[in-house]
Amino acid sequence: MAASDAQLARMAQKLRRHSLESTTEAGSGHPTSCMSMAELMSVLFFSEMRFDPADPSGSDADVFVLSKGHAAPILWATLKEAGAIEDDLLTLRRLDSRLEGHPTPLVPWVRVATGSLGQGLCATVGMAWARRTEGAPGRVFALMGDGEVAEGSVWEAAAFASFNGLDNVTAIVDVNRLGQSGPTMYQHDTAVYEARFRSFGWEAVTVDGHDVKAVREALAAGRNAKGKPFALVARTLKGKGVSFLEDKEGWHGKPVKKGEELQKAVAELGDTDITLPVEARRYSPITERAPVPPAVAPAYKMGQEVATREAYGTALAHLGAHCPQVVALDGDTKNSTFAERFKAVDPHRFAEAYIAEQNMVGVALGVSTEGKIPFASTFACFLSRAYDFIRMAAISRPSHLVLCGSHAGVSIGEDGASQMALEDLAMMRAITGATVLYPSEAVSAERLVELAARTKGIVYIRTSRPKTKVIYANDEQFVVGGSKTVRSSDKDRVTIVAAGVTVEEALTAHERLAAEGIATRVIDLYSVKPVDVDTLQRAASETKAVLTVEDHSVHGGIGDAVAAAVSGRAPVTMLGVREIPRSGKPAELMAMHGIDADAIVRAVRALA
Amino acid sequence: MAASDAQLARMAQKLRRHSLESTTEAGSGHPTSCMSMAELMSVLFFSEMRFDPADPSGSDADVFVLSKGHAAPILWATLKEAGAIEDDLLTLRRLDSRLEGHPTPLVPWVRVATGSLGQGLCATVGMAWARRTEGAPGRVFALMGDGEVAEGSVWEAAAFASFNGLDNVTAIVDVNRLGQSGPTMYQHDTAVYEARFRSFGWEAVTVDGHDVKAVREALAAGRNAKGKPFALVARTLKGKGVSFLEDKEGWHGKPVKKGEELQKAVAELGDTDITLPVEARRYSPITERAPVPPAVAPAYKMGQEVATREAYGTALAHLGAHCPQVVALDGDTKNSTFAERFKAVDPHRFAEAYIAEQNMVGVALGVSTEGKIPFASTFACFLSRAYDFIRMAAISRPSHLVLCGSHAGVSIGEDGASQMALEDLAMMRAITGATVLYPSEAVSAERLVELAARTKGIVYIRTSRPKTKVIYANDEQFVVGGSKTVRSSDKDRVTIVAAGVTVEEALTAHERLAAEGIATRVIDLYSVKPVDVDTLQRAASETKAVLTVEDHSVHGGIGDAVAAAVSGRAPVTMLGVREIPRSGKPAELMAMHGIDADAIVRAVRALA
Repeated sequence: MAASDAQLARMAQKLRRHSLESTTEAGSGHPTSCMSMAELMSVLFFSEMRFDPADPSGSDADVFVLSKGHAAPILWATLKEAGAIEDDLLTLRRLDSRLEGHPTPLVPWVRVATGSLGQGLCATVGMAWARRTEGAPGRVFALMGDGEVAEGSVWEAAAFASFNGLDNVTAIVDVNRLGQSGPTMYQHDTAVYEARFRSFGWEAVTVDGHDVKAVREALAAGRNAKGKPFALVARTLKGKGVSFLEDKEGWHGKPVKKGEELQKAVAELGDTDITLPVEARRYSPITERAPVPPAVAPAYKMGQEVATREAYGTALAHLGAHCPQVVALDGDTKNSTFAERFKAVDPHRFAEAYIAEQNMVGVALGVSTEGKIPFASTFACFLSRAYDFIRMAAISRPSHLVLCGSHAGVSIGEDGASQMALEDLAMMRAITGATVLYPSEAVSAERLVELAARTKGIVYIRTSRPKTKVIYANDEQFVVGGSKTVRSSDKDRVTIVAAGVTVEEALTAHERLAAEGIATRVIDLYSVKPVDVDTLQRAASETKAVLTVEDHSVHGGIGDAVAAAVSGRAPVTMLGVREIPRSGKPAELMAMHGIDADAIVRAVRALA
Repeated sequence: MAASDAQLARMAQKLRRHSLESTTEAGSGHPTSCMSMAELMSVLFFSEMRFDPADPSGSDADVFVLSKGHAAPILWATLKEAGAIEDDLLTLRRLDSRLEGHPTPLVPWVRVATGSLGQGLCATVGMAWARRTEGAPGRVFALMGDGEVAEGSVWEAAAFASFNGLDNVTAIVDVNRLGQSGPTMYQHDTAVYEARFRSFGWEAVTVDGHDVKAVREALAAGRNAKGKPFALVARTLKGKGVSFLEDKEGWHGKPVKKGEELQKAVAELGDTDITLPVEARRYSPITERAPVPPAVAPAYKMGQEVATREAYGTALAHLGAHCPQVVALDGDTKNSTFAERFKAVDPHRFAEAYIAEQNMVGVALGVSTEGKIPFASTFACFLSRAYDFIRMAAISRPSHLVLCGSHAGVSIGEDGASQMALEDLAMMRAITGATVLYPSEAVSAERLVELAARTKGIVYIRTSRPKTKVIYANDEQFVVGGSKTVRSSDKDRVTIVAAGVTVEEALTAHERLAAEGIATRVIDLYSVKPVDVDTLQRAASETKAVLTVEDHSVHGGIGDAVAAAVSGRAPVTMLGVREIPRSGKPAELMAMHGIDADAIVRAVRALA
């Protein structure tokens, strides 16, 4: 039986009470940010949304994303009241509790971690797109704050959603007028938000967010809107329901005091004695194509010249043809990253994200939560645009999220510094739990694509623009955390650790040094993280010195990883980019920045 | 004498010719992206803009930012034709030329490097804001591509500009319909762009971008628009003027072939024989307040407990009171970063950037080009949002750009992982030329703020949420590249390298270990980059082992920096965050992640 508006309103008051009590008990948190959205949560969970409180996993249900993650207490309260979780709400923010200060997937109802604003809608839109590709039912809802809508990524997601006709998305903006440190830009001028969503191709409606009937009817109308995503702009009051909190500045992120203050606040909420059973409602499940273990089939000749970015495209297309769970995204660079080869195989599982890298990564994360293996590619330097999204994605612990950055380093040549990724290894190494792979030629590129699809969590693949010679047999095997010692003897005096385009340089240097009577070991460090500590430590012990050479900043990349791994067993000298590069030919730039064969030869002579 | 429309149209053809010839000579580049905007450039530089071709520096002139940086060839051609540069256009993209593939300040007319799309408008808006704070005249123009407008940062800048009433800004969108890898989202549906700019508070007009008269008249109207920024949406054709390039897919980033193909293209442009002298036109210069050397005045008692973030605010306010060249920005976190103390001193030199960190950094960069020293602050984790902007800012070689990230690491406590910066040291270390400072207590925090204001280029200051005890005298001096050896003896067995909140932990561990008879050296590594190699190498040589301890990912931060610096002189053991953190009390989390005094004691015992 449907809950009445009066019951939904009382439930809203109860959610406010929980939000107040749990934050007061925790001694920190954002009660007033919860209180503005209590009716929105009550209507969503106890009237609008179809889901089974016993099953957080199903794709045959509606999904809710709390994009304004600081309102976590009311999410926990709502899930508890809906019978979806059993946790004690008063354990909020404690080390022994799943109820964190901002939502994380420790609670399985949370698909994506939030708390960095402006990201929830991107993931939501990704879920909607993934459902659309499968013909899967179910709506996805994202609830944002008004301050949050200043993030440009919100508008990237808005454009993606309308461009793709995702009418299974509803965005709700809780316009409570007050940000963290003062009023928001537009305060209660809700017309601004409505006009912006409309100009981005959405249907949009403004309501009093504390009017249960109005919210309920607007969401119902949104459910029936066809062809366009739907935005509900809700005018609300921060701290609503308690006189000394309501619409007051100075109360962001601040709980009320235990004792009298809390009692006074709770008393103002009136009678909160209500329980509303949630009826388990699901959509008919769809039959997804069964996943197929990812495998590639490299077919190169030794010595053949192929860019790793091209091999990436070939491998990705192979996965596209055989593994229905693999999807691909790209940011209007698909002809350069070679993701276009995937699109050629199955355009329906390819998302053109256009020039909006934050949203591309957010969409990919959302896609992942629908059971897919997303590969998202662009120039490696432009993944830095999405660094906060990658950081947050790590906290979301996705089962799969593969990022490919092409055109790494100065070896791209004439386009100049703006297009050269020199920080991507550092940024990806610092992401907790991320795997970082960097192929030097085509066979390893294909194998690392396969490995990426088989590896849990976030995997970064770094590809290069120039062609490099194939040095591995097609059946060569690679593992996460491995390396290849491509040249070695018991007379090696120096170990050269290279990766990507510098492997070829190291091999050239090896030959030239051998002619001078200097034996060198050459390691292809294709797994930058985790790094092959055993092989590196053995090489450090067996040779006099270690030399690293990378087409990347000398800080935070391969040099640092190797120095940390060998930890005192040998001195580590680092060749890498130390100055801002410029336009020029690839070979000229590699020489100028001291990472070519000549530079390696010079450095080894000095060390040997 | 004003150039006629016919003359401007012929100049546009000449600029096309230059763009074709220079890219063909270079063998790479984006001629068709230049050709769509030839009339726009011709009207801007030879009719609309006031500037002195002999002086690229003045604030008493209009400024142009080519946000679609891949169209650099037509910028170089226009500057050459205007008499602003003397370079040979046919040296485009050569190592010995200033005329790079994307604009960089090697040519002084380029204030900010572009080539990562969606950034130019943010910097432009920053220049406009800085001029407004000084009452300085002159308009600023940003020219963007249509594909570029998909970047959310464009809309962050748009909101900032209209919110601040910056009617000295003009944005031009060259809607040429074609992106890199296919058509843009909206192709020639210019109404979409006009509606979006209007919904973001701009005046907006659409014209045929190849109609010189229409462009000229629209820009003149925009010049007179009051109270709102002005957007010119120009419908254009990519490759305009040459039949086999015009509006054709497959020609992005591709020069025509030397010989017959180039001859055919040039022939189609018709008569390009024209020279238009640019009259030197300036505004009346304003009298800026003379800069004052930055200095702070820390006033703490030894042992007093003060958070470094608070000391940052105190020092910043001091600079605000005494140095008119210092400005501050914050992203709706000013009550947490303590930037609000600057606002209290001089609200006119404070910019509230709201929750839009990309634009905040872009605006700060633009502000810097107006001769200011900008300090931009937010939670350290949210600076990752602006990483691509920071990367590009480095290429822009700003005289000053100070970024402050507060709330670093797990020591923030209950808010949980989404609010904890664990990657910021890695990301900032990898930025070429950037300085990275990390105070452990209030005196060093203030001194490092002073140092940041005196240091050229990009400076990052990392502050912490918890209070820490003051350990330095108020007159203690600090230098970029320095460190403080706060405990040492000739019996030291292990060197502990700490920074920020871990210095206090290291000092506690030092005492406890001393009681056990284990002497340790303690280094406060307040300058993370450049790092004090001499002191670290000496410590490594004088002790048996080095232990690093940081409230940051164990990858890419202090551990890596120290391992690289000591390079084999001693084994380096690293304590840092290795797992995704969660909500909890600061002390609990520091214990859980093994970076507190207990963890240090255990590690030192194992090493000693």
